[in-house]
Amino acid sequence: MSQIMVLNGPNLNLLGTREPDQYGNETLADVENNCRATAQQYDHTIDFRQSNHEGSLVDYLHEANEKFKQGELIGVIINPGAYTHTSVAIHDAIKGIEPPVIEVHISNVHARESFRHHSYVSPVAAGTLIGFGTKGYDLAIHSLLMK
Amino acid sequence: MSQIMVLNGPNLNLLGTREPDQYGNETLADVENNCRATAQQYDHTIDFRQSNHEGSLVDYLHEANEKFKQGELIGVIINPGAYTHTSVAIHDAIKGIEPPVIEVHISNVHARESFRHHSYVSPVAAGTLIGFGTKGYDLAIHSLLMK
Amino acid sequence: MSQIMVLNGPNLNLLGTREPDQYGNETLADVENNCRATAQQYDHTIDFRQSNHEGSLVDYLHEANEKFKQGELIGVIINPGAYTHTSVAIHDAIKGIEPPVIEVHISNVHARESFRHHSYVSPVAAGTLIGFGTKGYDLAIHSLLMK
Amino acid sequence: MSQIMVLNGPNLNLLGTREPDQYGNETLADVENNCRATAQQYDHTIDFRQSNHEGSLVDYLHEANEKFKQGELIGVIINPGAYTHTSVAIHDAIKGIEPPVIEVHISNVHARESFRHHSYVSPVAAGTLIGFGTKGYDLAIHSLLMK
Amino acid sequence: MSQIMVLNGPNLNLLGTREPDQYGNETLADVENNCRATAQQYDHTIDFRQSNHEGSLVDYLHEANEKFKQGELIGVIINPGAYTHTSVAIHDAIKGIEPPVIEVHISNVHARESFRHHSYVSPVAAGTLIGFGTKGYDLAIHSLLMK
Amino acid sequence: MSQIMVLNGPNLNLLGTREPDQYGNETLADVENNCRATAQQYDHTIDFRQSNHEGSLVDYLHEANEKFKQGELIGVIINPGAYTHTSVAIHDAIKGIEPPVIEVHISNVHARESFRHHSYVSPVAAGTLIGFGTKGYDLAIHSLLMK
Amino acid sequence: MSQIMVLNGPNLNLLGTREPDQYGNETLADVENNCRATAQQYDHTIDFRQSNHEGSLVDYLHEANEKFKQGELIGVIINPGAYTHTSVAIHDAIKGIEPPVIEVHISNVHARESFRHHSYVSPVAAGTLIGFGTKGYDLAIHSLLMK
Amino acid sequence: MSQIMVLNGPNLNLLGTREPDQYGNETLADVENNCRATAQQYDHTIDFRQSNHEGSLVDYLHEANEKFKQGELIGVIINPGAYTHTSVAIHDAIKGIEPPVIEVHISNVHARESFRHHSYVSPVAAGTLIGFGTKGYDLAIHSLLMK
Amino acid sequence: MSQIMVLNGPNLNLLGTREPDQYGNETLADVENNCRATAQQYDHTIDFRQSNHEGSLVDYLHEANEKFKQGELIGVIINPGAYTHTSVAIHDAIKGIEPPVIEVHISNVHARESFRHHSYVSPVAAGTLIGFGTKGYDLAIHSLLMK
Amino acid sequence: MSQIMVLNGPNLNLLGTREPDQYGNETLADVENNCRATAQQYDHTIDFRQSNHEGSLVDYLHEANEKFKQGELIGVIINPGAYTHTSVAIHDAIKGIEPPVIEVHISNVHARESFRHHSYVSPVAAGTLIGFGTKGYDLAIHSLLMK
Amino acid sequence: MSQIMVLNGPNLNLLGTREPDQYGNETLADVENNCRATAQQYDHTIDFRQSNHEGSLVDYLHEANEKFKQGELIGVIINPGAYTHTSVAIHDAIKGIEPPVIEVHISNVHARESFRHHSYVSPVAAGTLIGFGTKGYDLAIHSLLMK
Amino acid sequence: MSQIMVLNGPNLNLLGTREPDQYGNETLADVENNCRATAQQYDHTIDFRQSNHEGSLVDYLHEANEKFKQGELIGVIINPGAYTHTSVAIHDAIKGIEPPVIEVHISNVHARESFRHHSYVSPVAAGTLIGFGTKGYDLAIHSLLMK
Repeated sequence: MSQIMVLNGPNLNLLGTREPDQYGNETLADVENNCRATAQQYDHTIDFRQSNHEGSLVDYLHEANEKFKQGELIGVIINPGAYTHTSVAIHDAIKGIEPPVIEVHISNVHARESFRHHSYVSPVAAGTLIGFGTKGYDLAIHSLLMK
Repeated sequence: MSQIMVLNGPNLNLLGTREPDQYGNETLADVENNCRATAQQYDHTIDFRQSNHEGSLVDYLHEANEKFKQGELIGVIINPGAYTHTSVAIHDAIKGIEPPVIEVHISNVHARESFRHHSYVSPVAAGTLIGFGTKGYDLAIHSLLMK
Repeated sequence: MSQIMVLNGPNLNLLGTREPDQYGNETLADVENNCRATAQQYDHTIDFRQSNHEGSLVDYLHEANEKFKQGELIGVIINPGAYTHTSVAIHDAIKGIEPPVIEVHISNVHARESFRHHSYVSPVAAGTLIGFGTKGYDLAIHSLLMK
Repeated sequence: MSQIMVLNGPNLNLLGTREPDQYGNETLADVENNCRATAQQYDHTIDFRQSNHEGSLVDYLHEANEKFKQGELIGVIINPGAYTHTSVAIHDAIKGIEPPVIEVHISNVHARESFRHHSYVSPVAAGTLIGFGTKGYDLAIHSLLMK
Repeated sequence: MSQIMVLNGPNLNLLGTREPDQYGNETLADVENNCRATAQQYDHTIDFRQSNHEGSLVDYLHEANEKFKQGELIGVIINPGAYTHTSVAIHDAIKGIEPPVIEVHISNVHARESFRHHSYVSPVAAGTLIGFGTKGYDLAIHSLLMK
Repeated sequence: MSQIMVLNGPNLNLLGTREPDQYGNETLADVENNCRATAQQYDHTIDFRQSNHEGSLVDYLHEANEKFKQGELIGVIINPGAYTHTSVAIHDAIKGIEPPVIEVHISNVHARESFRHHSYVSPVAAGTLIGFGTKGYDLAIHSLLMK
Repeated sequence: MSQIMVLNGPNLNLLGTREPDQYGNETLADVENNCRATAQQYDHTIDFRQSNHEGSLVDYLHEANEKFKQGELIGVIINPGAYTHTSVAIHDAIKGIEPPVIEVHISNVHARESFRHHSYVSPVAAGTLIGFGTKGYDLAIHSLLMK
Repeated sequence: MSQIMVLNGPNLNLLGTREPDQYGNETLADVENNCRATAQQYDHTIDFRQSNHEGSLVDYLHEANEKFKQGELIGVIINPGAYTHTSVAIHDAIKGIEPPVIEVHISNVHARESFRHHSYVSPVAAGTLIGFGTKGYDLAIHSLLMK
Repeated sequence: MSQIMVLNGPNLNLLGTREPDQYGNETLADVENNCRATAQQYDHTIDFRQSNHEGSLVDYLHEANEKFKQGELIGVIINPGAYTHTSVAIHDAIKGIEPPVIEVHISNVHARESFRHHSYVSPVAAGTLIGFGTKGYDLAIHSLLMK
Repeated sequence: MSQIMVLNGPNLNLLGTREPDQYGNETLADVENNCRATAQQYDHTIDFRQSNHEGSLVDYLHEANEKFKQGELIGVIINPGAYTHTSVAIHDAIKGIEPPVIEVHISNVHARESFRHHSYVSPVAAGTLIGFGTKGYDLAIHSLLMK
Repeated sequence: MSQIMVLNGPNLNLLGTREPDQYGNETLADVENNCRATAQQYDHTIDFRQSNHEGSLVDYLHEANEKFKQGELIGVIINPGAYTHTSVAIHDAIKGIEPPVIEVHISNVHARESFRHHSYVSPVAAGTLIGFGTKGYDLAIHSLLMK
Repeated sequence: MSQIMVLNGPNLNLLGTREPDQYGNETLADVENNCRATAQQYDHTIDFRQSNHEGSLVDYLHEANEKFKQGELIGVIINPGAYTHTSVAIHDAIKGIEPPVIEVHISNVHARESFRHHSYVSPVAAGTLIGFGTKGYDLAIHSLLMK
């Protein structure tokens, strides 16, 4: 049994309470449960994390790289939250590691403020999913595991 | 049995021969077959089209709107090709119709020329998938049909 | 009896159903009837057309030019829809023909998305009317015929 | 009998002598006479003013607001001249009052210097007329009064 | 007993009736009364003025300068309204005089149109208060008088 | 007795020694003491913190949200330091929580380098105070507590 | 005997009547005759076409690709007219096909409006000729055929 | 004996007291005396004015036009102060009148803030003098009167 | 027998050794020989020069002007190299002289760095040839001499 | 007797023949004679030079610096021609030397192409004269010598 | 014996494995050893650190300041990695402390993506070294210690 | 014994007298002596040059290329002065030659005017040193010669 690491950036711990018009009513715990259920269909496990610290997300990506080289992990899913738009450090981390990284945004970032239209993650992502709500996490898992 | 309309924009008829490094070796017929197979899992059919004419794509979107109102169609998947970046007309068409429209790009447009980084379709799409290769079509069908 | 050609660009065939907050409930057929009624006050007829194809609008402008040289037409009214903002071809067509061309927009384009603030048609139009709703077509006919 | 206020911004007192290629040979007194004649067709009167002072135009718009609330005035027509392009104060005044305000430009501002392409008045105008020469004032009166 | 001059720019005479969602229901007379009451706590008086004319605001700032040199005035509070964003003349007047000038905006200008995000007054203000509603005037008086 | 949380961003621990021309000679401990004294006038307490870590400031804002829901806290004052200009994460955190957040800058940021002219915090702040020196903290407390 | 395809974009059917100061008095039929004469010197034929439809020009480029693979065509000459400046679709089509494509402009586009200064075709053209009048077509044929 | 009108824009009444590093210690009365002395060498008189109101400067330019047509005035010298950078109205006034208008700036505007680098007056001035201190007024008079 | 002057800008003396992928293996001496051969077909001679000095190229253009007035020269061909993108002086020189000047670029400048996309020479050139390799010099000679 | 150095940049040797609408019919020799005559009124001489080479103008400015230190020269007048808009080297030379440098432009550069609106010389000039025709040189001499 | 602090930003812990074409094969441990060896030539020691956290780098710079004031440290060398381009906080920290800070980049950042061309560190660095590979660290130590 | 060529651009001959705050008191002769001393430590010689002419610097780079191919030179150090910011020609020269070229700036260009922040030389330099004063030349020599 192998693993997928699911990383969540700043403020995603508030999911379900913060701006429900934009993000819906599901909490991050709900998302985590759905992810585990979907991965189980393919006999995989989920390593689910959240942090408000840019540096911690970089640390986790490096950790995923080590696991990938050991054959314990097959890919990363990241919802970088606000760091999507400002973090060259996460851009560089993704570029510098080996596992495929799928970028997920719950809301349609292109229908919001213009500073959310640019992503430093997209150019180095193995795939990007925008605007599918929390269902985007499931689709990302399918994209990594389905034939 | 209900339908999904899959629209393909300019030059996608060259798929498999044009810039294979960027777009892979599958042809548009291969994509069509895969789409039909995936839809069939959910007992749905596919109305698969390609056109190099901006105006024809607008016409098709209007046609989809009529079918949707009749209950014959549940959504649209569009790979707008080059019109992604220039067509306010397609933007307006999507905004003016009722069925959900999923935007798909085979290649990672954000890792290519800067004029491919802006999409007139994204702000009005129900969801966007970028860089998953032709598998993006399958994920788009799942996003419309899975619970 | 002479003629005015009234041209309508992409998506205007959806008028009355598409974004009624923005465009009102009148259909394009209603607009056509009003135009005919207004023109009749001056003993003129209307050649009313709609197309989603940029090239067709260019063709129609060329056709209007021929009629104008024959003395069969006294001017053109165009609501270029989304092509307002992207079509150098329509700009060139208007610049290259002889009849006066009046530009009409139903909604207040300057109160909407910023990509609708620039018009390629305005610099070559004989006059521009913005935001009068469908009454703008009537005013355009008056502008061409009243003393 | 009700009233329409017609406001003219800076340098319009020079009309007929200033840059006749751009603005024609009619004087502002000619325009005033035409406006009165057109309004009379509908049994309305005209309150016609000109000022080179931005603050005075703001004052007049507030005055129009008072008259509108008393039922003595049905709308405003403004040719803001150079203040079109620089006055946030006039923008705010129009936004803050109740009567509809129609914006008129004699010349085709979009065919002139680029600093004339942006209008602070357009986003808050009830309608905009550009490039019809002094006939634009007449069309504006019709737009407010015709059924 | 010394004085504070409180200056109000264009359209602020409409306060309470204009865009109440943005500016609240208090009138400018209410604001004036509050200012007088707050100043009285410190045994100071208020010279409260409003003008729609940019030039008059410059004149008042010069007048304040004379009073300041005579020891009759200890500072100026200005809500420059729309001239905030366009007036280099007010910028120069503030830079050229000696009394401290506090800038006040009732609404949160940074949450509105982008042309309201830049202030010519801020770089030369002794302090800036944004978004506290009419309470901002009181805070400005405290800032000048409290120890 | 209820609380106000006062947050200080990066480098503010150097206050009093760093660029005294820009920031004055008071230390952050002096500021803390003044804040406590001012809050005590209204029978409130202060939770005073400083961090050089963007993620920690986000964490603190979330913590303030919890306290606010428990009725233990009535508002937040934040001097985001350098993160003012770069942190979408803090912008999102403020937008996602319930207590009012007042933004304070000691120096006049608009009279300094242009990269300090834009604030990600201002559009979501309940109020902004710029350039009042350390007295700005006191004014912010008054703004939250005075009637 | 092999072929050169010569493609002409929107409004070029008006050549000789449209803006003669800019484009001269020769008609498109004259250009076609000259092209045939020049090609005949090298024992080649010309497939000469014009369309106002962006999609048709893309179709023709695909058709040329097929002929090129069959050895029936040695290159394409295109005067894309207004689509030069807006068509990513033609850009993509040229990039996706094998025959060399020479870009021709009759007038000096760099001495005209600024929106004519950028070409989407130039970066993918095998060569570009600007400002030689209709003689540019002849030079393009020579460039493909001379040793 | 004929006249030169010398116009001074906002804040120039503070000359000699305002920012002496930038503008020197001479007062506007000193400048007026020097102007009269220089004009007298050529048997001309000076009509010297200052206003903080943009609209008044426009009025004065119109008045100068009337005098010029009567043969009573040979030219205008204007130091538009802050309105240099913001007034399209003064630009239009100068363009619409007949006498030559010389633009004078006391300080080197190009060595100051970037918003002082653009002048709406320069494109329509008969000549521009920058940075000569108050001596620039004298040189402007010489430029109008010397052979 | 008349002459064509062929001017080559900075670094073109390195042709054949510098970036052969971009510029090919032919040396400037090879180009010169080809030019002479082509010109000889029309009984013309070539005055072939290279300089790394901007001022020298300006001097040569002035010299060509003198020869042209004497009837000794019929045109100039210039490959301005890097000065294409920076030299207003060469722009002015070409504009100020009488003989037609043809601009040639060996490589496709529009497929290279963005600072090579703008040419100061194109707006004043009698014709421009881009991307034909060294064959561009031959086509330029033909353009000046063929009927 | 002391000296003024008068420097002329690229293409000014063509004065009188190049674009006479823009620059008039006087030659550079005429200008030189006028300069000598004007300087003689004050018992000064002129060192008059022209070069098409940026580096030579820098050399001359250094030479002027040496003369100034010897008390042989009292100032420099420069018409930098096209280098006005591109030369940081001349900017640095003027900033690095001691004598005052007056900048002169014959035509009104602000009424021409936008690339002529910026000057690298103005921020470091002791004074700037624009648009006075060749009379600008005389005024510049007066500015250096008159009391 | 005194110390130099060497700080390394995000992802530099991956050195030697990440993008070896860009950064070479040496690991960060190799760099540390070289630094120690070079410092030892001058009888100095190295305090070598790496962190993926922006806030930690700010903390370390403050710590260096304390050591510098104690005479235990003579300077700092920082390779800020991705934070070079986004961190105003590090900019402010360097500006607010006393020891000289040398900026080092292993690769040539100006030959990479445009978002790497701007550094917030350079304007406040005592010196900057770019593109010397890991040898840049050695040169930085020499720059601080050599006479 | 092999050589290093040290090139100095415009105005560097004024070193020691020009803007000493920016550039210090050392003359270019002092720099030359230091360079020779440092090179001698490694048994190398220096070919030290200065020119105010862009074209001469290009010539010298070509000359260095010849010497490098003969094995007589091991690298170039260039302080391009003002040409750093404007010369595509020097950029192209460096790109077209073989020896490594080290770029040196005495002052911290990033702490000065914004037009000094961009370098055409950096993207093609083998290494860049900024802000080390004249010691930067020594470090550059070490970078070329030390192991």
